[in-house]
Amino acid sequence: MNTTQTAVKMVLDRWYASIKNCNSIFELLTDEQLEKEIAPNKNRGIYLLGHLVAVHDDMIRLLDLGDKLYPELFEPFIKAADKTVAEIPTAATLRGFWNKQNEVLAEKFNSLSVEDWFQKHTAVSAEDFANEPHRNKLNIIITRTSHLQYHTGQIVLLKP
Amino acid sequence: MNTTQTAVKMVLDRWYASIKNCNSIFELLTDEQLEKEIAPNKNRGIYLLGHLVAVHDDMIRLLDLGDKLYPELFEPFIKAADKTVAEIPTAATLRGFWNKQNEVLAEKFNSLSVEDWFQKHTAVSAEDFANEPHRNKLNIIITRTSHLQYHTGQIVLLKP
Repeated sequence: MNTTQTAVKMVLDRWYASIKNCNSIFELLTDEQLEKEIAPNKNRGIYLLGHLVAVHDDMIRLLDLGDKLYPELFEPFIKAADKTVAEIPTAATLRGFWNKQNEVLAEKFNSLSVEDWFQKHTAVSAEDFANEPHRNKLNIIITRTSHLQYHTGQIVLLKP
Repeated sequence: MNTTQTAVKMVLDRWYASIKNCNSIFELLTDEQLEKEIAPNKNRGIYLLGHLVAVHDDMIRLLDLGDKLYPELFEPFIKAADKTVAEIPTAATLRGFWNKQNEVLAEKFNSLSVEDWFQKHTAVSAEDFANEPHRNKLNIIITRTSHLQYHTGQIVLLKP
């Protein structure tokens, strides 16, 4: 295994370990607990669950791996703040989305070669990418792992 | 820039951006706000500040870059839970440690070459490393960035 292969493995391992950790917390929480705010007047667990699915959905587009699975989540879970949208999907529905999405993402990620991960993502132009080769697909995994960890640190607060 | 160099840059960029983001939150918070719990009956901000310094201090040892700066923080901020140790350093002291440490870490990280980052860290044996080349110094940065993001998502809750 050369250093480039090792680097891709480390980044993907961290993503999958972060998903697994977050998932184990979701599984510990009841739907009722998910409805609670992580701290007084802050986001609810259910909003963060929907937010993670919506943000991870956008990775599919950024990685040029197809269309979003749940485009309808952008509006209530990215554009809108929590508790400002009258109707959002139930916790059970969002849990289903989360599980299905994690399967689909893993399958799509597995289809990329080590070289593919260093190709540009879809939000950067070919011209900019020529000078900024770090704006590649692997960097999408790196930044979204950070984002996932940030919110996992919040969701865990719902554990009684 | 080859793919290995790009990978190292991406991982270090994410570390520094995470430090900068966490730092900007600490700077927004007063010492009084840091004394508060991030959520009812959870860790206080000051504990998380001390915890981050203690965990990052251990990176120096893991990366074979010298001795810890603040070994006295292990006991109250890693071994012990929050609110179980009678006396801990003040927020002002910990802020000083945090700032100084970030300077020292950046200087030490800069001393490593791209090849150095793929060498084994000090907590893995040469035998194990031969079969598990991902247990290298760069992976210490990757995992500690995750850890930092996790707690940053908590510390931000102290913003009024």
